[in-house]
Amino acid sequence: MLKTQAYAAPAAGKPLAPFTFEHREPGPHDVLIDILYCGVCHSDIHQARDEWGGSIFPMVPGHEIIGRVKQVGQHVTKLKVGDMAGVGCMVDSCRDCQPCRQDLEMFCEKGMALTYNGTQMDRKTPTYGGYSTQVVVSERFTLKVPEGLDPAAAAPLLCAGITTYSPLRQWNCKKGDRVGVVGLGGLGHMAVKLAASMGAEVTVLSTSRSKEADARRLGARGFEVTKEEGTFKKLAGKFDLIIDTISAPHDYNQYLSMLRPLGAMVLVGVPPQPTPVAAFALINGNKRLAGSSIGGIAETQEMLDYCAKHQIVSDVEVIPIQKINEAYERMLKSDVRYRFVIDMASLKDAAAR
Amino acid sequence: MLKTQAYAAPAAGKPLAPFTFEHREPGPHDVLIDILYCGVCHSDIHQARDEWGGSIFPMVPGHEIIGRVKQVGQHVTKLKVGDMAGVGCMVDSCRDCQPCRQDLEMFCEKGMALTYNGTQMDRKTPTYGGYSTQVVVSERFTLKVPEGLDPAAAAPLLCAGITTYSPLRQWNCKKGDRVGVVGLGGLGHMAVKLAASMGAEVTVLSTSRSKEADARRLGARGFEVTKEEGTFKKLAGKFDLIIDTISAPHDYNQYLSMLRPLGAMVLVGVPPQPTPVAAFALINGNKRLAGSSIGGIAETQEMLDYCAKHQIVSDVEVIPIQKINEAYERMLKSDVRYRFVIDMASLKDAAAR
Repeated sequence: MLKTQAYAAPAAGKPLAPFTFEHREPGPHDVLIDILYCGVCHSDIHQARDEWGGSIFPMVPGHEIIGRVKQVGQHVTKLKVGDMAGVGCMVDSCRDCQPCRQDLEMFCEKGMALTYNGTQMDRKTPTYGGYSTQVVVSERFTLKVPEGLDPAAAAPLLCAGITTYSPLRQWNCKKGDRVGVVGLGGLGHMAVKLAASMGAEVTVLSTSRSKEADARRLGARGFEVTKEEGTFKKLAGKFDLIIDTISAPHDYNQYLSMLRPLGAMVLVGVPPQPTPVAAFALINGNKRLAGSSIGGIAETQEMLDYCAKHQIVSDVEVIPIQKINEAYERMLKSDVRYRFVIDMASLKDAAAR
Repeated sequence: MLKTQAYAAPAAGKPLAPFTFEHREPGPHDVLIDILYCGVCHSDIHQARDEWGGSIFPMVPGHEIIGRVKQVGQHVTKLKVGDMAGVGCMVDSCRDCQPCRQDLEMFCEKGMALTYNGTQMDRKTPTYGGYSTQVVVSERFTLKVPEGLDPAAAAPLLCAGITTYSPLRQWNCKKGDRVGVVGLGGLGHMAVKLAASMGAEVTVLSTSRSKEADARRLGARGFEVTKEEGTFKKLAGKFDLIIDTISAPHDYNQYLSMLRPLGAMVLVGVPPQPTPVAAFALINGNKRLAGSSIGGIAETQEMLDYCAKHQIVSDVEVIPIQKINEAYERMLKSDVRYRFVIDMASLKDAAAR
């Protein structure tokens, strides 16, 4: 077994602190990755505080993992020692059901194995995430990270990147499309970069004027403040596609009014309560309200290759792991532009002392 | 001006009674249609009782019109005297905006001219619908009804038919798809016939077991009662597409749970209040909740030609116009299988006496 240093939440809402656990010895199809960076996702906070229920403790969060391959099993072909590799939100699935065979492993009928706060497919062995020095993952669930990408800034692509890339692809975002991005946070800033790179005319919809310069720097052509009077009326029927990254309560019907006929609004944020939807808001204009999860492994690889080609990474603030609790507090105040990434050297150094 | 016999609601909720009005003389692009049959749509009741607000009285309802062409203007090419013609929910639009140019006249940016309870594009001249002896309509908004279709049973195709055909086409209903039809009324029975004709395996979802034999006769392979315990659990992840025709309050989230990943539920019914939608119900499975209105003129013609080819019409109960108020009461008790159609000979005979 491989003794691994980490930071864990010992119980719901407790500060994260040093923790040690063991990974399995790599099998013939496994890859051992020496973790270099791990992004900090909002869902890390939700789960570490058990805000969605059912959390498993102690919990080592982290599903935006980038590192170097340290060891590979004898049957591994996708990666070799020294390669840059990534791990996202899942580390296994049944591989046999219809969604798995359609490269939609996140919808595995038996339930995917989450990278953390879950179990392996044996439904016994707990999974521990990327706030740690190393990880053992089946080759099938690893990603090859193109060498042209900065590893720290690429880490958030494994969750925030694929979560915004996938709906843009599902809804055929293309040159000339008018795309609205609601909310400019970790997800929103990736949606702006990706949609702009696909040739779309991007407008950021924010509650505050303060992010306008940033939005334009990231590639937005328009910036609108939803709290200003007349905004929804002015934008009626404008957008082909809206990517809604907001997790606070808001009125979907108002946002649907900004879609052109046959336009789609895709939810990637999860408000705490169900949101009332008026049937007429969808029927009048044959509009679509959709949800989008992460992406399958194949699509995640496609996204990484796309980002390398277009030189797209996340805007990050790199922190030592000792600052993780402070980072959580800052995230809750939206005080990060736009993603914290943990430099895992800080954990290895501390362990070595 | 053309003096026209009709039945009208004189004021909100008042019984319909004989009424006379005048149509314009047909212009060079107009078609004068001698109305043979007119279907009775649920929206006729809503509007005659001003349940959606803004109703205009006196109101001559009716937007499922079938008749013989009696006269054509000199520039008319689509139809000739003696042809079977149809008129649906709209009689004009601006013809120039983007939706109009995309054959989506129902989403005209200036607002389509409704067949009744509206005005012509001059926004002054009231429009009167098909509970009448004749109608004058611009050629652009007439449909050619194939001779192979029974005119009485074809009348409901102009609204109920296109309203269910369009979402099946938008969502690419095809052989082998599993399609759920929620509610077996005027819209639902057309959705079953049309989806089955496209090769889908159709399941009717109803609140009562009483319609099972009918559902199977119409082409459904499955029948499930939503009020029975365990139904939603049993059907989890089953459907590629759900057509939801229900106008009573119901929990969309439960129905979304029956979709496979990337499946769509399309609303064609309008519950009285907005319905709470949980973001997770859409995100988990990349699911889609859509609305669908009627269809444009081109798609309505396509539907009529499709129905002629596949010999699809509505199941109707033909009534004299003198029974219209009784028919409304029966519709409110769902006591019709599945559409009332007025035989306009009853109105002409009465007028002649």
